Amino acid sequence: MASRHQQTYGQRALRQANPTAKLLLETIERKKSNLAVSVDVTKSKDFLSIIEVVGPFVCLIKTHIDIIEDFEPSLIEQLQDLSKKHDFVIFEDRKFADIGNTVSLQYSGGVYKIASWSHITNAHPVPGPSVIQGLSSVGLPLGRGLLLLAEMSTKGTLARDSYTEDAVRMARSHRNFVIGFIAQRRMGGIGLVDEGADSVADEDFLILTPGVGLDVAGDAMGQQYRSPRQVIFDSGCDVIIVGRGIYGNDLSLVDVIAARAERYMAEGWAAYMERVGSNHS
Amino acid sequence: MASRHQQTYGQRALRQANPTAKLLLETIERKKSNLAVSVDVTKSKDFLSIIEVVGPFVCLIKTHIDIIEDFEPSLIEQLQDLSKKHDFVIFEDRKFADIGNTVSLQYSGGVYKIASWSHITNAHPVPGPSVIQGLSSVGLPLGRGLLLLAEMSTKGTLARDSYTEDAVRMARSHRNFVIGFIAQRRMGGIGLVDEGADSVADEDFLILTPGVGLDVAGDAMGQQYRSPRQVIFDSGCDVIIVGRGIYGNDLSLVDVIAARAERYMAEGWAAYMERVGSNHS
Repeated sequence: MASRHQQTYGQRALRQANPTAKLLLETIERKKSNLAVSVDVTKSKDFLSIIEVVGPFVCLIKTHIDIIEDFEPSLIEQLQDLSKKHDFVIFEDRKFADIGNTVSLQYSGGVYKIASWSHITNAHPVPGPSVIQGLSSVGLPLGRGLLLLAEMSTKGTLARDSYTEDAVRMARSHRNFVIGFIAQRRMGGIGLVDEGADSVADEDFLILTPGVGLDVAGDAMGQQYRSPRQVIFDSGCDVIIVGRGIYGNDLSLVDVIAARAERYMAEGWAAYMERVGSNHS
Repeated sequence: MASRHQQTYGQRALRQANPTAKLLLETIERKKSNLAVSVDVTKSKDFLSIIEVVGPFVCLIKTHIDIIEDFEPSLIEQLQDLSKKHDFVIFEDRKFADIGNTVSLQYSGGVYKIASWSHITNAHPVPGPSVIQGLSSVGLPLGRGLLLLAEMSTKGTLARDSYTEDAVRMARSHRNFVIGFIAQRRMGGIGLVDEGADSVADEDFLILTPGVGLDVAGDAMGQQYRSPRQVIFDSGCDVIIVGRGIYGNDLSLVDVIAARAERYMAEGWAAYMERVGSNHS
């Protein structure tokens, strides 16, 4: 049997217990897109206009809702409308990183009520299992999914070595809610101690990978970039996350932005087709 | 010469370059309180009423502004008024943990505009130095200070061993903005490699310590507790952070809450007096 990531997204969707993991894989298969766009702008108008343009080309929109200056609750309704119209999953990139009780309040409540609208969110494993338990107490009843940050793409990150291994072990202990990782590679063999590889043969964590660019090498603040093919084919990741590499600095260039999104989508999908090879029917 | 933490808060204030570090130490000395109260409630009314009651007994109020359901910008003005009235420093416990560009937007902007009102904030070092650089680009011009999370008090935390050492080294490289740590002990000798202890003899990081309780041993979500004396005298930390151990579950018991705050303040100060001994004039 081919290892999980050499199966098709559709085949893998069938075996996911978490409804959000299933939804994401089905969306990828249906739209033939493993592209996620990270919408890092500070005005509601820009936020919505980028999503309107890239929506047809993405499986997922990643948000930082807390950088939007003129946030109103109606923005969430508009985001949800776009999610239905263009058929994408929503991922609020909150990077929760507090103790269980605090993250459960941050996730469910406050101004943003993230759990009520974001299919996926993420957390740093650094506080230990309580961060997952706190988020799970809110998200699991809603059918949500969590990604753990097992690695980061920034220079000098401390998410490496034993930290990464511990993160994967933590995920394995909470597989009903943790659907995968923000990472630069597959996490299959990571963190195994006494158990053999057989014990995790049925696990299929999704790998969403930031720091993807076609024409850039890095920015001033420590971000490092890899190509879609490096990420999907070489490293076996599942979703490429691209930000300003798609929408650039002039949001009026709608056709250019759409063309860039289409290009990343095509490159990501070609790398995936190469990876799954004859498994794809 | 006594090591830094055996000097008085007032003596240490004189040597701090960062204005917020100086402000906090001066406030502690002036109020004879090394008590911080963590106000983890979800309604503005409760938030303000707790601060009104405990304000006279604290050097610092720690907030989670993003758990407040009925947040309005006017809440910040009221918090700032209370800060002036009761003479305490404000610390938004945001636990920033993203890449530089993102945290700079989260810190300066969005609905909360944290940098505009919170003297101190904190960050996880896990993304690497870019998280400090991003926050510093916003906070340093405003005279703000940053705490790094070098350790956590939760079970199974990954902030340990080489992670903690790397966090301290990162802080040392950004001493104009990083004023100290959220930690369970002093960080003086941690993370030194080729440099000798002499090279860091002039450093005086502030240690703010959560997980402090007088009558409790732990909660259901993985928090563990130590006494004020353990934290201030045994471990040489500078500020004790207490939450529900002071304000409990019935906010109408104003006298009880004030008495508890006074008790923690007294215990924290007694432990400090014992620590500095004859250095205190």
